[in-house]
Amino acid sequence: MSIYQHIREEAFAANMLLPELNLVIFTFGNVSAADHDMGVFAIKPSGVPYEQLTPGHMVIVDFDGNVVEGELRPSSDTQTHAVLYKHWPELGGISHTHSTYGTAWAQAQQDIPIMGTTHADHTTHDIPCAPPMPDGQIQGDYEYETGFQIMNCFESRGIDHREVEMVLIGNHAPFTWGKNAQKAVYHSAVLEEMARMAYLSLQINPEAPRLKSALIKKHYERKHGAGAYYGQES
Amino acid sequence: MSIYQHIREEAFAANMLLPELNLVIFTFGNVSAADHDMGVFAIKPSGVPYEQLTPGHMVIVDFDGNVVEGELRPSSDTQTHAVLYKHWPELGGISHTHSTYGTAWAQAQQDIPIMGTTHADHTTHDIPCAPPMPDGQIQGDYEYETGFQIMNCFESRGIDHREVEMVLIGNHAPFTWGKNAQKAVYHSAVLEEMARMAYLSLQINPEAPRLKSALIKKHYERKHGAGAYYGQES
Amino acid sequence: MSIYQHIREEAFAANMLLPELNLVIFTFGNVSAADHDMGVFAIKPSGVPYEQLTPGHMVIVDFDGNVVEGELRPSSDTQTHAVLYKHWPELGGISHTHSTYGTAWAQAQQDIPIMGTTHADHTTHDIPCAPPMPDGQIQGDYEYETGFQIMNCFESRGIDHREVEMVLIGNHAPFTWGKNAQKAVYHSAVLEEMARMAYLSLQINPEAPRLKSALIKKHYERKHGAGAYYGQES
Amino acid sequence: MSIYQHIREEAFAANMLLPELNLVIFTFGNVSAADHDMGVFAIKPSGVPYEQLTPGHMVIVDFDGNVVEGELRPSSDTQTHAVLYKHWPELGGISHTHSTYGTAWAQAQQDIPIMGTTHADHTTHDIPCAPPMPDGQIQGDYEYETGFQIMNCFESRGIDHREVEMVLIGNHAPFTWGKNAQKAVYHSAVLEEMARMAYLSLQINPEAPRLKSALIKKHYERKHGAGAYYGQES
Repeated sequence: MSIYQHIREEAFAANMLLPELNLVIFTFGNVSAADHDMGVFAIKPSGVPYEQLTPGHMVIVDFDGNVVEGELRPSSDTQTHAVLYKHWPELGGISHTHSTYGTAWAQAQQDIPIMGTTHADHTTHDIPCAPPMPDGQIQGDYEYETGFQIMNCFESRGIDHREVEMVLIGNHAPFTWGKNAQKAVYHSAVLEEMARMAYLSLQINPEAPRLKSALIKKHYERKHGAGAYYGQES
Repeated sequence: MSIYQHIREEAFAANMLLPELNLVIFTFGNVSAADHDMGVFAIKPSGVPYEQLTPGHMVIVDFDGNVVEGELRPSSDTQTHAVLYKHWPELGGISHTHSTYGTAWAQAQQDIPIMGTTHADHTTHDIPCAPPMPDGQIQGDYEYETGFQIMNCFESRGIDHREVEMVLIGNHAPFTWGKNAQKAVYHSAVLEEMARMAYLSLQINPEAPRLKSALIKKHYERKHGAGAYYGQES
Repeated sequence: MSIYQHIREEAFAANMLLPELNLVIFTFGNVSAADHDMGVFAIKPSGVPYEQLTPGHMVIVDFDGNVVEGELRPSSDTQTHAVLYKHWPELGGISHTHSTYGTAWAQAQQDIPIMGTTHADHTTHDIPCAPPMPDGQIQGDYEYETGFQIMNCFESRGIDHREVEMVLIGNHAPFTWGKNAQKAVYHSAVLEEMARMAYLSLQINPEAPRLKSALIKKHYERKHGAGAYYGQES
Repeated sequence: MSIYQHIREEAFAANMLLPELNLVIFTFGNVSAADHDMGVFAIKPSGVPYEQLTPGHMVIVDFDGNVVEGELRPSSDTQTHAVLYKHWPELGGISHTHSTYGTAWAQAQQDIPIMGTTHADHTTHDIPCAPPMPDGQIQGDYEYETGFQIMNCFESRGIDHREVEMVLIGNHAPFTWGKNAQKAVYHSAVLEEMARMAYLSLQINPEAPRLKSALIKKHYERKHGAGAYYGQES
């Protein structure tokens, strides 16, 4: 048995949530699970249908993007995952989908505005849409550069990746993360619902204001603050 | 066996309808069932996934918001339920969801206009959207204040909570109620469909008029009036 | 066994298609099946959930709206069905739903324009939206008058009910019909899809033209004309 | 056993994917599978419900549109398939649906613009919408002319059918193709999702730009170029 079996299982289970939660069609998505002590992550192989996937198919890759174990070619987005794990050590899992409403906002090149408490329950900011890369980077090591595109977006806006665990890549689609792979996929699903609700609210009322600060703070704090009272004590 | 078993069962069954009727994703909702003679209600525990829920998980709370029985922390919205039960004795059940279209209208800070007979079959008014609370109340006992936010909205507009069993909390989401928990959830589902139809009608024709009085009266009366002839005699 | 067993079975099976085809939530719909030789039709009882329905629950009613057999109260829309069967002898079945997109157009008080061949495969006209009745008729024998509202709409526009087997009641919802109850429900489903496609087309291009005459004629004729070549010879 | 059993099986399996992928209601679609060495294709019979379909029902037709084997009448769109197979020898399968969003764009008489990488993963162009035919051709051999309508559209715009494997027929619906029948249906599903995402993006931001050339090239090449690195080596 592989010494990476635990992240193989974790990545496999999280990948299987994508079709279950209607976040992908065909093979349009990939999830990874990292073990920072071992310096590696397990990721879905490229182009393999979800219904054929097994934990053994997962590919083990290090944080410089080198395959460590596995017979299949890893997801074409593997270098993006590697860059994020290398620079953001809090990330235990990363999820990438082309979910419909999230992708629609990315294609519109617009941030998803924080319109209500469903959004504030999860984060305090608009979900940033990173602008498309310069052509030179696209023509170069594209997926590697995508990792820096995400980090630069957060840095230039002063957003903390531990507080906003989601991003839209302009003209592409969402990436989300979390303390483990399951949480990363949970954020993919939450982003999709926030994207859908914000879309509908602005169709109903194009002048609808963003959520006011007191409500943002209240809802985020009751789930994530020091005195959080949502959920059960762990 | 708990002396509250009947409301535990009722609240459990009604909570399980939320995912079945596609009104929630993950744990974004909660339903309670009250026994006014006993002065208590049973409510979903906070943050517990629906697929793990049992009647024994329900938390018994009195109308001042004190936990009477149960090992888990009750829903973070419990104080809102308590306030409504205390002041509106006709309520046997309360349901709170973040259903997509209802929440979109709440985020748009607009009432759901009465556009057709589907709406009038259930109530005679636009579904009111309560404006967001002042910051002081948000920073204070927020969920307790939400109960008064709802009651103030009805009082200031002269709406009877026995005739309009639904409300939108501005920037948040819907609350609905009924003579029992199942009816409360039924109203959550009806509100969602009314919200969706009104959205579509106004996209098709932004000048579409609201339903005229004679049709509102006719449809409401045939289901709810003295000479109602919808459904079977009970 | 009832001498009306054949239409009980037909009406039951057709009613059960409504939830299966996602055309209703709860009890928001009813289908009937007529036997013109016997001068009666079988219709869903009022307010009975689909999951509890049996052929024996169907209520047998004559074309003047009198209950002939059955222990339950018939659908509140029964008089509308009776009027249509009495005046339009070609109708073997009638279906009424509050399907989402069809109802949205009805609430918008607009005809569903013929935008493409999906529509022309079924009929050559826009689907008419009958304007709301005068208040006096609403306050009178409302459901009976609804039958005449439909017939007047067709007569005033010169539309043949054998060629356009669908109508929207303004501010209410669709009625459809056919040579039998199953065909009536089929038309409910087709209307819903036509309503959805027309909505989307006009959102994409508000100036999109209606389908030109040559295409309307070609598509309708290949399915319904003398030289029809769609489907198998019967 | 038929000497065409292999394409009967292929066409049957691909047709059954249409309802599974929610691309059709009732009988609104048809798929064919060709054997260019034998000079024939297998196609769905006209108007037969998917749930009754078997491989034996498929009709074998030559590239001039003559039935070679089979007891049922072939799809009414058979001549369109025949024309395309005759002139475009790379086509192993053709799929035709009235999928909701694809048809909505066709009814809007607009190309589906390339708004993001989901689109560029599959093709480098906007999906062309062929303008409706002149009346004379509609009144003539309509389905045969539809084949030329598609080819003329590609020729007049200088688009290669091996690079853009999808088209919208103005006011009608999509046709897609591929190296086999399953790939053709895959393209039907991808077109529907692209159509839906482009619709939503333009509702969110009517000024959203099309995808820039460097990203189109990068995404198409990484899946389809000489140095493709998406999927597994075959």
